[in-house]
Amino acid sequence: MNRKYLSNHTENDRTEIRLAGEGGQGMILAGVILAEAAAVYDGQNAVQTQSYGPEARGGASKAEVVISAQQIHYPEVISADVLVALSQEACDRYASNLKKGGLLIVDRDQVGRIPVNSAIRAPIMALAESVTGRAITANVVALGLLVGLTGVVSRQSIEAAVSARAPKGTESINLAALAAGFDEARRILSRN
Amino acid sequence: MNRKYLSNHTENDRTEIRLAGEGGQGMILAGVILAEAAAVYDGQNAVQTQSYGPEARGGASKAEVVISAQQIHYPEVISADVLVALSQEACDRYASNLKKGGLLIVDRDQVGRIPVNSAIRAPIMALAESVTGRAITANVVALGLLVGLTGVVSRQSIEAAVSARAPKGTESINLAALAAGFDEARRILSRN
Repeated sequence: MNRKYLSNHTENDRTEIRLAGEGGQGMILAGVILAEAAAVYDGQNAVQTQSYGPEARGGASKAEVVISAQQIHYPEVISADVLVALSQEACDRYASNLKKGGLLIVDRDQVGRIPVNSAIRAPIMALAESVTGRAITANVVALGLLVGLTGVVSRQSIEAAVSARAPKGTESINLAALAAGFDEARRILSRN
Repeated sequence: MNRKYLSNHTENDRTEIRLAGEGGQGMILAGVILAEAAAVYDGQNAVQTQSYGPEARGGASKAEVVISAQQIHYPEVISADVLVALSQEACDRYASNLKKGGLLIVDRDQVGRIPVNSAIRAPIMALAESVTGRAITANVVALGLLVGLTGVVSRQSIEAAVSARAPKGTESINLAALAAGFDEARRILSRN
């Protein structure tokens, strides 16, 4: 795991990840893919949760993934090691719950105000559109970026999980989206 | 809610549902659909969870949904009010965790041994194949059956959630699968 971007990580080898955006951005599918990468392909334990309260009626969408080599006793995110926010509302709502030293990844064009000290601002949706022609693959670009920056699962495992979960016929564009996320992570790491 | 099939239901209006089968049977998508029906369309609160341990590597698949009119303090199933089991392994693994008086729904052709006193044995996969020509819609047949027997969400809400979550182009066959599940529930209720 790249400790640069998970500097305070963490008691008990427990990594808490929150993926948040608007409905239709595929955050839940991204959460399922990440959890399956960790558990089915990487041999870790994972719990993936959606909590729906009143905000669900407003169109917000959020998925949580907890990954650990150990048994996971509490399934929900307590304070996130990583937050991916694809909308300003998602960023506003969840940034304050990041752990000290946690990693905030936002879409450069969707999120203007960053309410914490540091964040990775990446053209997630723009990359999705330019690489695959489909904005809906932004969720998978975000997964590539997240895994490339943190190493929370192996690249091989996230590729296998994307292939298994991508809607039939979209495997190759989703793998291209994932690769674009990894490329962006490498660019970010090389300039820091 | 039809109390006949949720007789011991339940403290705090909390309903705990577990959907279990093999990988590829769409249990996770069924869980997401049910949770969204409850929260987005029915105005309740819902939490939907996948826990992946070693059994995930064996191809088992399980989704949990907790639904409540109140805030949900603990997101995982403690003891299930309802278990849907589409495979023998799923039935063997989770039947003992049913609440006293809880509802067990199994696929008639996949599950031969029932380790508890009573269960609804329904031709879930056979209905999926005969009504839609696609076994993969068994997950949505199961949802229709579950909601028809329990009333845990409204029919209108589960229809809306199925429409919203069905892969593009498959909305109508998934709504047909859902209706087949409701029809089967009506048959079961009328003969008891």
